[in-house]
Amino acid sequence: MSDKANQLYKELVERIKEVSLIGSCESLLGWDERTYMPRGGSAHRANQASYMAGLRHKKFTDPRIGELLSELTQSDLVKDELSDEAVNIREIKYEYDKEIKIPQKLVEEFTHTTTMSQGVWSQARTENDFPKFLPWLEKIVKLCRERAECLGYEKEAYDALLDEYEPGSSVEFVDNIFSGFRDDLVELVSAIAGSKKKPDLSIIETAYPVDVQEVFGRSAAVAIGYDFSTGRLDLSAHPFTTDIGPGDVRITTRYNPNHLGQALFGTLHEAGHGMYEQGLPSVHYGTPRGEAASLGIHESQSRMWENQVGRGKPFWKYFFPRGQQMFPDVLGDVKFDDFFFAINDVRPSLIRVEADEVTYNLHILLRFEMEHALINGDMQVDDAPAAWNEKFQKYFGLTPPDDADGCMQDVHWSAGYFGYFPTYTLGNLYSAQFFNKAKADIPGLEDQFEIGNFDELKKWLEKNIYANGRKYRAAKLVEVVTGEKLSPEPLMKYLQNKFGELYEL
Amino acid sequence: MSDKANQLYKELVERIKEVSLIGSCESLLGWDERTYMPRGGSAHRANQASYMAGLRHKKFTDPRIGELLSELTQSDLVKDELSDEAVNIREIKYEYDKEIKIPQKLVEEFTHTTTMSQGVWSQARTENDFPKFLPWLEKIVKLCRERAECLGYEKEAYDALLDEYEPGSSVEFVDNIFSGFRDDLVELVSAIAGSKKKPDLSIIETAYPVDVQEVFGRSAAVAIGYDFSTGRLDLSAHPFTTDIGPGDVRITTRYNPNHLGQALFGTLHEAGHGMYEQGLPSVHYGTPRGEAASLGIHESQSRMWENQVGRGKPFWKYFFPRGQQMFPDVLGDVKFDDFFFAINDVRPSLIRVEADEVTYNLHILLRFEMEHALINGDMQVDDAPAAWNEKFQKYFGLTPPDDADGCMQDVHWSAGYFGYFPTYTLGNLYSAQFFNKAKADIPGLEDQFEIGNFDELKKWLEKNIYANGRKYRAAKLVEVVTGEKLSPEPLMKYLQNKFGELYEL
Repeated sequence: MSDKANQLYKELVERIKEVSLIGSCESLLGWDERTYMPRGGSAHRANQASYMAGLRHKKFTDPRIGELLSELTQSDLVKDELSDEAVNIREIKYEYDKEIKIPQKLVEEFTHTTTMSQGVWSQARTENDFPKFLPWLEKIVKLCRERAECLGYEKEAYDALLDEYEPGSSVEFVDNIFSGFRDDLVELVSAIAGSKKKPDLSIIETAYPVDVQEVFGRSAAVAIGYDFSTGRLDLSAHPFTTDIGPGDVRITTRYNPNHLGQALFGTLHEAGHGMYEQGLPSVHYGTPRGEAASLGIHESQSRMWENQVGRGKPFWKYFFPRGQQMFPDVLGDVKFDDFFFAINDVRPSLIRVEADEVTYNLHILLRFEMEHALINGDMQVDDAPAAWNEKFQKYFGLTPPDDADGCMQDVHWSAGYFGYFPTYTLGNLYSAQFFNKAKADIPGLEDQFEIGNFDELKKWLEKNIYANGRKYRAAKLVEVVTGEKLSPEPLMKYLQNKFGELYEL
Repeated sequence: MSDKANQLYKELVERIKEVSLIGSCESLLGWDERTYMPRGGSAHRANQASYMAGLRHKKFTDPRIGELLSELTQSDLVKDELSDEAVNIREIKYEYDKEIKIPQKLVEEFTHTTTMSQGVWSQARTENDFPKFLPWLEKIVKLCRERAECLGYEKEAYDALLDEYEPGSSVEFVDNIFSGFRDDLVELVSAIAGSKKKPDLSIIETAYPVDVQEVFGRSAAVAIGYDFSTGRLDLSAHPFTTDIGPGDVRITTRYNPNHLGQALFGTLHEAGHGMYEQGLPSVHYGTPRGEAASLGIHESQSRMWENQVGRGKPFWKYFFPRGQQMFPDVLGDVKFDDFFFAINDVRPSLIRVEADEVTYNLHILLRFEMEHALINGDMQVDDAPAAWNEKFQKYFGLTPPDDADGCMQDVHWSAGYFGYFPTYTLGNLYSAQFFNKAKADIPGLEDQFEIGNFDELKKWLEKNIYANGRKYRAAKLVEVVTGEKLSPEPLMKYLQNKFGELYEL
C-alpha cells in the first residue's frame, strides 16, 4: 500500500467520522423528542434537527470527499475487497454518490417538515383527526417524490426510496419475496382460523401492574444480553432503538396495564436491536465498517429475540415460573401450555406492532401496497383512510373503527420513512434463516435457553453478524453466514411447524 | 436608518442565531449527560460536546462577524443606545471581542476536559476519593488560567474569569460587596447562635415519602408560575436549569427521603430560574436582547422564589395546610409557627445547597477565597482539601468529615466554572432589592400569596426583569428597576428583621 493512499484514506476516515459525530448529535435530538421533550419545544427542535441534518449533509457532500473517493477507488487499498479499507471506501462512495444528488435545501426542508409532522401526527392520532395530519402527509409524500427524483431510479420512484433502506432492493425484489410465500401464508392463516383449538386470551389480556411489568421486562432484557451500563429503557408512544454513540444505545417500550405481551415482546424486540448496536465493532465506530449491514439485517436481530427466542417454548420454560412469581394473582394457577398458547395466539388484528408472527407479514404487505401507490401517484393522500380500510377488510376481514387504529397507527409516514416497511418482512426472513443456522452450529442451543442461558446465541451473533458490521451487503451476508441464498422457506417452515402443532392442523 | 446598515444588521442577526442554535444543541447534550445518559456514554459525549463547542466558537469568531460589527458600531443603528439593534450590537461585540481571543483548540480542550471530568467528579464524590479527581482539577485550573491569559485583564487573572459570568465585576468589586455586609452577617450568625430559641428540626428531618414530595414540589412550581407545557422537572445529582430553546426550559431537583425542605426549596429555586428563561422575549430568541441579563440577575430570580417567597410566612399560610393534607402522619399535629421556624432554621452546616439564607453567603465567601487563591497560584490544587477544611473551621466552626462533603461537594469546579460562585451572593443582594421594590409597587402583594395567588409578582417580574432581556447590564438594571444603586442594605435588613423576630434577638 502506498503512503499516499494511506494518507488520503486517513483523511477520508477523519471526515466521515466528523459526519458521524454530527449524526450522533441528531440521534440525541431525536431520542429526546420522542421521550422527554416538552410539547412546547417542538418548533425549536425542528430548527435544531434541520440545522444539524443540513450541516451533516454539507460536510458529507464536501467536494473533497469526492476527490478522495475517486483517488482511493483507483488505489491498492481496494484490492482486497473485504479489507476494512475497501469496505469503507465502497460504502462511503455508495452513500456519497446518493447524497450529492440531494440539494441541501431539500435535506433541511425534509428534516424540518418531518420533525414538525411527528408532533402533529402524535396529536392527530390521539384525537383521531386525520384531516389535521393530511396536509403534512401530503407535503411529506411530495418531498419523498422529490427525493426519489433527485436520487434517480431505473424503473420507478419508489425503487429509489426502497434502496435507501435496503440497498439493492426494488419493487420487483419485494414483489418476488411476497409472491414466494404469500399463498402459503394466507393458507396458514386460513387453516388457523378454521381450527377448533383457540387459546384462552383472558390469561394475558388482564390486569398486569405496570411497575411489575417493567421489572419483568428489564430482567428479560438483561437475561438475553442487553447491557444497561451502556443503555437505557424508556417510555415512548412508539417503541424504538437509537444509537447515540459507542457506549450509549437506548431502547424504549410502552406498557399496556391490561396486557402482558405488548411491552414484554416490544422490549425483547428493541433489546435485539440494541444488542446489535452494542455489539458492533467499536474500533470502527463512525465508519461503515462499524455500522449495521442494513435495516433488514437490523430487523432480523430484533425479530430473532422477540419471536424465535422470546415466543419459543425453551424461553418460557425458564421465564414462566418467574412470571408466576411476579404475577401470582394472575398466573399462579395457569398451566404452562395454556399460557404458551395464549402468547402465541394467531388472529387478524388492527395494530401492526401488536400482531402475531403469522399475520404480521400481511400488515407489511398492506403498507407496501399503500405507500407504493402513494409514491407513484396511483393513490391520492386524502384517499388513504378509505383505501386503508378497504385493503384491511380484504386481507384481514376487519374494518378499523377509526383512523387512529387505521392508517394513522404508525409513526413511519409522519417521519418520512417511505420504503422502510418492507425491511420488516425481510427481517423476518433473514431471522428464520440465521436462527436455523445457529441451531445447526450449536448443538443443544435451545436446551440452554431453558435454564436461562442465552450467551451461546449472543456469542454466535457477535461472531457472525455483529462483528461483520457492513462488511457484506445484506444478501451476501445471508450467503456467507448460512451458506445459502435468502429463501422464504425457513420462515414458512418455522411458522407451519410451530403453529401446526399449536393449532393441531 | 440606512438600508445598508439594516442589511448588515440582518446578516449579523442571522449569523448570531446560527451560533445560538448550535449552543442550544449543546444545552441538550449537557442536560442529557446530567440526567439520563448511561455511564458508558461519557467518552463519546465529551467528543460530541467538544465538537459542538468548537463549531460554535468557529462560527462566532468568523471574521465576517468582526467586519459586520465594525461597520455597525459606526452606523445609525447604535444612535438610540437602548434600541434592540443597539443592544444586540453592543452585546455581540462584547462577547465577540472576548471570544476571538480564545483559540479553537483551547475551546475544544476545555469542553472535552470538563465534560470528562464531571463524570470523574461524580464518581470521586460518591467514593470520597479526592486523589481520583485531583489530576482533573489540576488540568482545569491550568486551562482556566490559560483562558484568563487569552482574555486578558487589568489587575489579575481571576478578574477575567469573573467578568465572564458577571460582566463588569472584578475581585475588587466582589471584595467590596463582601466587606459591605460581612461584619453584619457574622454578627447576625453569632446572635442567632447565642439565642435560646431553637426550632424543632425533627419536624422536617423525618420520613417524607419521595413520591408525595414530588407531587408537592410540582404543585408548588405550578402555583408560582413555572409552565410544564414548556418545561420539565427531572432528577439529577446537582439541581440545575437549562434552556434548550423557546418552549423548552427544563429544571431538575433531587429528593432526600428524610427531609422535606431540600427538594422543595431546590424546586422553587430552579423554577425561579426556569420562569425567567420561559419569560424572556421569544421574539428576540437567539440574540442577546432575548437573553438573561447576567448570572447574578438569574440568581436573583431563583433566590426570590426560593427565599423571599418560598421561605416566607404568606407562602406557608397557603401551603402549610396543603402540606398537612399530603403528609398527615408527619405534619397533621404540627403547629404552623413550629413548622415555619423549622424551615427557617439557621445554623452552620456542611453543604452549600442545603444552607439557610443567612449562612449561605459564608459558603460563597469561602469558595471565592479558595478559587481566587487557586487561580492566582497562592494555593496548590493538592492543598485544596486541607485549605477548605481550615477555612471551614474558621467560618463555620465545623470541620467536614470528608472531602465528599467538603471541597468536592459542588459540580462547578469539575465543570470549569471558576468565577461563578460570587454571582450567587450578588443574586441574593439583587433579589432583596428587587423584592422591596415589588412590594412597594404592588400594595398587598404578600396578602395575595396567602391565598395561593403569585400572579402579581410574576407579572411584575415579567415587566421589569424578563422583558428587558439583556437590554441593561446588571448594575444598570438594578438602578432602572429600583431607582437606586445596588446596596447590601436591603438584604441585611431583610435578614435582620426576619431572623430577629424568629430568634427573638
